[in-house]
Amino acid sequence: MEDTPLVVAVTGAAGQIGYQLVPLIASGSVFPGKKIDLRLLEIKEEFLTGSIMEIDDCAYESLTNVTGTADPLVAFKDADVAIFVGGMPRKEGMERKDLLDANISIFKKQGEALEAVAKRTVKSLVVANPANTNCLALWKATTMPRENFTALTRLDHNRALTQIAQAEGATNVSDVIIWGNHSKTQFPDVRFVKADGKPVSEDKTDFYRGDFINTVQTRGAAVIKARGMSSAMSAAKAVGDHMRDWFAGAEGYQSMAVIPPVGTYGIDTDLCFSFPIKCKGNFEYEVVEGLELDDFAKEKFAATLEELKEEKTTGEIA
Amino acid sequence: MEDTPLVVAVTGAAGQIGYQLVPLIASGSVFPGKKIDLRLLEIKEEFLTGSIMEIDDCAYESLTNVTGTADPLVAFKDADVAIFVGGMPRKEGMERKDLLDANISIFKKQGEALEAVAKRTVKSLVVANPANTNCLALWKATTMPRENFTALTRLDHNRALTQIAQAEGATNVSDVIIWGNHSKTQFPDVRFVKADGKPVSEDKTDFYRGDFINTVQTRGAAVIKARGMSSAMSAAKAVGDHMRDWFAGAEGYQSMAVIPPVGTYGIDTDLCFSFPIKCKGNFEYEVVEGLELDDFAKEKFAATLEELKEEKTTGEIA
Repeated sequence: MEDTPLVVAVTGAAGQIGYQLVPLIASGSVFPGKKIDLRLLEIKEEFLTGSIMEIDDCAYESLTNVTGTADPLVAFKDADVAIFVGGMPRKEGMERKDLLDANISIFKKQGEALEAVAKRTVKSLVVANPANTNCLALWKATTMPRENFTALTRLDHNRALTQIAQAEGATNVSDVIIWGNHSKTQFPDVRFVKADGKPVSEDKTDFYRGDFINTVQTRGAAVIKARGMSSAMSAAKAVGDHMRDWFAGAEGYQSMAVIPPVGTYGIDTDLCFSFPIKCKGNFEYEVVEGLELDDFAKEKFAATLEELKEEKTTGEIA
Repeated sequence: MEDTPLVVAVTGAAGQIGYQLVPLIASGSVFPGKKIDLRLLEIKEEFLTGSIMEIDDCAYESLTNVTGTADPLVAFKDADVAIFVGGMPRKEGMERKDLLDANISIFKKQGEALEAVAKRTVKSLVVANPANTNCLALWKATTMPRENFTALTRLDHNRALTQIAQAEGATNVSDVIIWGNHSKTQFPDVRFVKADGKPVSEDKTDFYRGDFINTVQTRGAAVIKARGMSSAMSAAKAVGDHMRDWFAGAEGYQSMAVIPPVGTYGIDTDLCFSFPIKCKGNFEYEVVEGLELDDFAKEKFAATLEELKEEKTTGEIA
């Protein structure tokens, strides 16, 4: 156990994802071996009173401190890690452009706060939708390295893993890839999957190009329909996996939305795009480069790329 | 990782404590090194649909199987562990006797189901209130060993640890004792506490006999007031701590409500009573015997004992 605690900020911390995420972080399972100084940000500080009482009542051994605040400058002060769960959800009658604008405005402000007070090395993960474009806006509001800004597609990745395990009757599935946007245009790609050490079944190609993709793309809505609320347990699990692998490293391919140098996989502008990622430990990763896209994959890749470019233009992100 | 999964049943699994508890169990942090076969019981099976979709979406590596059911005979079949979160909550205008009767009736039936299909060695933890008396009723409905039945006072224990840490300005606090009932009569006893290796401050005796006890006894209501809902994160954390320490062992004193042989600490009837407990690993524990009770402690001990006897009589538990 190192002596200096990791300062971890979580926005939207009183919401249901936050309430599921805090135990993962505070218990030490996300950042193994590190003590945690936890900062919880909400629109109003009193939204956090109950959560903080319960965090106290958990008597977490890895937690050195917990702060609840409505001030980003307090939440992000000297932060090593910032997890952006809070955003503006779609309200009835809201146009797509209005939703984008509202969120981009939030993330610009949070980027400015991050720039003002966080460590220069702060590692960011955006969960709030539209997550990729929010992440791009966040980064653009700072002068920090692009490689420290990520958005969540690990939830899609994990959803895909179980769908494949069930289809193949396999126990250990790895190396699925989520390409592009955390949205209905995402492309879950099984061409490099290892299911108990083998590729996916050749006779299931129609499934993997049809129902499988559709199930993963629309899983969020299906959970809302079944649960009456959006995913929280599984979203928090994915956040934990993303941060743990980024921090500590992992075998095989993971999926993370990142902002790579222009030209990566032929993308001609700065975008936050989900790629196959190798997590090398110590908050270092690399995009797995040079994977071939067949005609089907090219078409899917182009569609999700197009959507992200459109979000960037509509959101007027320079 | 052993090959045979531990069969773990959770009742009331779709509720908010269940929703917080499942990730702790399924992630492997409660039963380290064991694969888990998870059985979720609810009043209606469809209450579990959303949770099970999300459990799938978590892609837990330690989880071999998850079953949702409304049938206790399915949920408890070959169970190694049964955690009873579900019960009848108090409704407006309900008399204390009616509430007791409703819950004891539920726990008798669940005990019969446990007896019918669970492993003879099944380890039970009752969380639903009145937890101690529900646990006694559960055990009485079986012919199983008394030492395999427990009720949750670890939440009170954890709450007390943090109250002491804050009062003493200490980092590591251990060996608090919760005596008696998980209710407002419980006696949180600091006389054997180690706070950074030292006893609690002598000049804080009034606090530890007054505000401290009151805060721990009424913490549940205070959380409800702050959060608008009852404790879930901290309750699930306490369940995880209780089961992990029982399974894997722990240093120092923990608090667990157990059903010891008649005569333990002078108690002249079978009751489920919280004691200082040493967790020895492999699901073995022993009550720490022979601790002296001073006059103050005797009075507090007697009050919580009286309440438990009264619950047993009112509930007509033979």
